[in-house]
Amino acid sequence: MIDGVKLTHLDIIEVEGGDVLHALKKTDSGFIHFGEAYFSKVKLKAIKAWKRHKKMTLNLICPVGEVKFVLVDDSEEEITFEEYVLSNENYKRLTVPPGVWFGFQGLSINHSLVLNIADIIHDPEEVERKELKEILYRWEK
Amino acid sequence: MIDGVKLTHLDIIEVEGGDVLHALKKTDSGFIHFGEAYFSKVKLKAIKAWKRHKKMTLNLICPVGEVKFVLVDDSEEEITFEEYVLSNENYKRLTVPPGVWFGFQGLSINHSLVLNIADIIHDPEEVERKELKEILYRWEK
Repeated sequence: MIDGVKLTHLDIIEVEGGDVLHALKKTDSGFIHFGEAYFSKVKLKAIKAWKRHKKMTLNLICPVGEVKFVLVDDSEEEITFEEYVLSNENYKRLTVPPGVWFGFQGLSINHSLVLNIADIIHDPEEVERKELKEILYRWEK
Repeated sequence: MIDGVKLTHLDIIEVEGGDVLHALKKTDSGFIHFGEAYFSKVKLKAIKAWKRHKKMTLNLICPVGEVKFVLVDDSEEEITFEEYVLSNENYKRLTVPPGVWFGFQGLSINHSLVLNIADIIHDPEEVERKELKEILYRWEK
């Protein structure tokens, strides 16, 4: 696993009328500070890549649909990829530390939803971007 | 408006592949502390009511589907209700302070989703409950 990346099991509590899904407690592993929470919707097969944060630690949760997160491990000479598919069936929280290139793709026919609970407020100055083709990865067609 | 209740406009940023939806920043009105974030799913017409928190301030956001929140105003002799229908079409954050009886109902054919960003960690000791029939309100049939 890339240094600082964490994958944490989350509970889903069955409730009549609609389940309750845990996301993040201030006492959880991976929590640093609260900066901002925001959602990203992802259409089927849509790809949002690549980004790298200089400062932000992301806590990513997928309560609706199915999303594949791809993290780039460039610690060795040849880059490799870590893939994490999150959904209600694999309901986990993915913690991504600063300094890691990552992207994600929607795998659900309906819109998927990703919640990011970040330790800082969104700041375009601390986000680096690369074009999709700049890092070669075999996305779902 | 019931004392301490806040309804705050939230931005939806159009992004190719899926929109970005704001939820809560630490600098926003209504934010006190971060305690815990969790989701509640709500089936069509399902009702989750009634609850009152002794300590928790809730920040409620509906990124998927449509949910009607009903807050009980018992400050006068005769109780009245405040209704807030949240969805992407009316994308707002509802802040509910401690001491207010409330419930909610799903209005969307598919599951609706509610995110609560609370200032304390869930604690069953600080939640009071009433049966649905104990507070008479005309829910959607």
